[in-house]
Amino acid sequence: MSRSVIVPKGFSFATAEAAIKYPRRKDLALIFSEIDANMVGTFTTNRVKAAPVRLDMKRIKSGMGRAIVVNSGNANACTGKQGMLDAAETAELVAHALKIKPSLAYVCSTGVIGIPMPMEKIRPKIRDLISNLGKSNIQDVAKAMMTTDTFPKIVHQKLRIDEKTGIITGICKGAGMIWPNMATMLCFLMTDIAVEQKALDKTLKDAVKQSFNRISVDGDRSTNDTVLFMANGILGNPLITENSESYNIFKMALREVTFNLSKLIVKDGEGATKFIEIEIKGAGSEEEAERAAFSVANSNLVKTAIYGNDPNWGRIMAALGYSGVKIKEEKVDIYFGKIQIVKKGTGTGRDEKASEMLKRKELKLTIDLNLGRSSAKVLTCDLTEKYIKENKAYRT
Amino acid sequence: MSRSVIVPKGFSFATAEAAIKYPRRKDLALIFSEIDANMVGTFTTNRVKAAPVRLDMKRIKSGMGRAIVVNSGNANACTGKQGMLDAAETAELVAHALKIKPSLAYVCSTGVIGIPMPMEKIRPKIRDLISNLGKSNIQDVAKAMMTTDTFPKIVHQKLRIDEKTGIITGICKGAGMIWPNMATMLCFLMTDIAVEQKALDKTLKDAVKQSFNRISVDGDRSTNDTVLFMANGILGNPLITENSESYNIFKMALREVTFNLSKLIVKDGEGATKFIEIEIKGAGSEEEAERAAFSVANSNLVKTAIYGNDPNWGRIMAALGYSGVKIKEEKVDIYFGKIQIVKKGTGTGRDEKASEMLKRKELKLTIDLNLGRSSAKVLTCDLTEKYIKENKAYRT
Repeated sequence: MSRSVIVPKGFSFATAEAAIKYPRRKDLALIFSEIDANMVGTFTTNRVKAAPVRLDMKRIKSGMGRAIVVNSGNANACTGKQGMLDAAETAELVAHALKIKPSLAYVCSTGVIGIPMPMEKIRPKIRDLISNLGKSNIQDVAKAMMTTDTFPKIVHQKLRIDEKTGIITGICKGAGMIWPNMATMLCFLMTDIAVEQKALDKTLKDAVKQSFNRISVDGDRSTNDTVLFMANGILGNPLITENSESYNIFKMALREVTFNLSKLIVKDGEGATKFIEIEIKGAGSEEEAERAAFSVANSNLVKTAIYGNDPNWGRIMAALGYSGVKIKEEKVDIYFGKIQIVKKGTGTGRDEKASEMLKRKELKLTIDLNLGRSSAKVLTCDLTEKYIKENKAYRT
Repeated sequence: MSRSVIVPKGFSFATAEAAIKYPRRKDLALIFSEIDANMVGTFTTNRVKAAPVRLDMKRIKSGMGRAIVVNSGNANACTGKQGMLDAAETAELVAHALKIKPSLAYVCSTGVIGIPMPMEKIRPKIRDLISNLGKSNIQDVAKAMMTTDTFPKIVHQKLRIDEKTGIITGICKGAGMIWPNMATMLCFLMTDIAVEQKALDKTLKDAVKQSFNRISVDGDRSTNDTVLFMANGILGNPLITENSESYNIFKMALREVTFNLSKLIVKDGEGATKFIEIEIKGAGSEEEAERAAFSVANSNLVKTAIYGNDPNWGRIMAALGYSGVKIKEEKVDIYFGKIQIVKKGTGTGRDEKASEMLKRKELKLTIDLNLGRSSAKVLTCDLTEKYIKENKAYRT
């Protein structure tokens, strides 16, 4: 394992080649907790939910888990009843080989929608997978679940909890433009810190709201989006509950892990050349700030202008105007980095300077509505010809 | 005037070169009704409204009009108080030269946002414009208001009203992807048929709902979108009111004119290579059908897949799923033309045939939710590299 990535105690990993979509590629992976872990999750709000999502949503009600099996190459979505049987069989096979209860095994899939899972390829590889347990590391798992991602995404965070050092580690896959459309986002988080299931659930929902839901959004998700979080408690700290002193330390650490994972997803957006942080300030409410930020972040015209180093603030004003959020044109200030390009709703004429600054790979766009005290940040990327090229031929 | 385009009696046209953005281009135009006309309009719902939109919204309350002056090259949007003064001055100059009341003169602008109107270029050209009156035809006006449009858009319809033959003619400009973002859509309709102002307003709202709002959508419009309709009554038919027998004939004819204009806008979408009609059937309500259709029509992933001749119905299912509309995955049928690619939520395996058919320039995508009796049609186009290229450098 690379020295730079640290994983919590009590988790082991495995990968295998099942040739689901491509030959000679590790496309099947396992995350295993040596002991029963408290487990919580959040799932896509898309009404069309892939079979494994439906399976996991049932299982997560127990609040417990031991194993996550993940495959890339096929999403097992829009696959009807057979898809449900296939997801359940995969979990069953994994649980049987691991000698754990099937209800403690979770399944996640990502890849093409609408094609039946090639179970004849997966079935014989489950045994390989289990016998490889411990021979792979977390990077291998992060790689095995990649689709159009160009790099594996792993973040860890050490934290002091009651005089012990615990670890939260997360891996995820993303790519796609995420919003307004979606590539599947999968994220697996694990920690050795002992956290009560209810507190774990609360911290996860809080962290997802501030991170993955600020790059994607409720109601506009892929059929397969899944975040799972396992806490096996091997650290031996006093169980963290909502009333614990360490609750907030844990919550903030988790926020940081998920925020950094979100950043990696956006940086790896399909065809993206620039990473853009959009902050709305001075909004009437956080909800309005978020909505205005998404309206700008999802504007194809804004995204292409930024790609072309064009500080076209008129498109930003228009996107604010159709967001449905209360704005007063004559109060809006807009900044690219520290360069103010709009003052009280009209241009400052600093376009040339702003255009220079747009050539950077990481940008910050700040919009002050000057109406209230609420703010929200959204992460996005530019829209390029490469995005079109990748997506017009994704299945071929 | 080309023999193929027919205009109603009592309207005349003028154009002039004001070099607002480019030299040697007719970028200023006038539509003039010889007598006072009943006049109605619909305007952008964007909260950021261009100065001329704000001016026209006030004037339209009188229900009367004589002249529309339109320019391309500058939108006069986000231009503060000076923008309002400039729009009013333009109307004033035109009205003065035409010897009509200023309140009967309307102004429309399209082009770049956020740059002050170059009034020093426009002022001296108003006189040219008026002295050219009658020397230009409606095609010249349609051309003068083009921005990234590649062809002028003109539609006319003859109709028998009380044994006389009246005419409705419309011109518009569009381009841009229209939705989820927007290029300004301007449309000017004129008729010699006598229609009471209230009835005229009702038919316009009905027609816009079925046409321009099915390619764009309320709450998501440009800063300048405007539709104006003048009825001068020169035909001399008995005034059409909502109770007239000919009311429905008139209404249906107007619907056809605006629907055909909408089609032209979509066909001329920036960088578009394909025209796509999306029909949702079997929805619980018309509103739900429309929402589901827009969710599919606005999906970048669906648009790029169609561009690449990829019948990627999984992306369509996902877009239906995140539309927020009630759907049952296991009931959904999807057709490209007459080729059924999804039956009860799963693939029929006819992808190859569907891919062949996607190579056509005009496509029909039908989605039956099989849940209710309501339907809605939305027009859209594909998303291509050319769209990115055009928009990243729009201002340069």
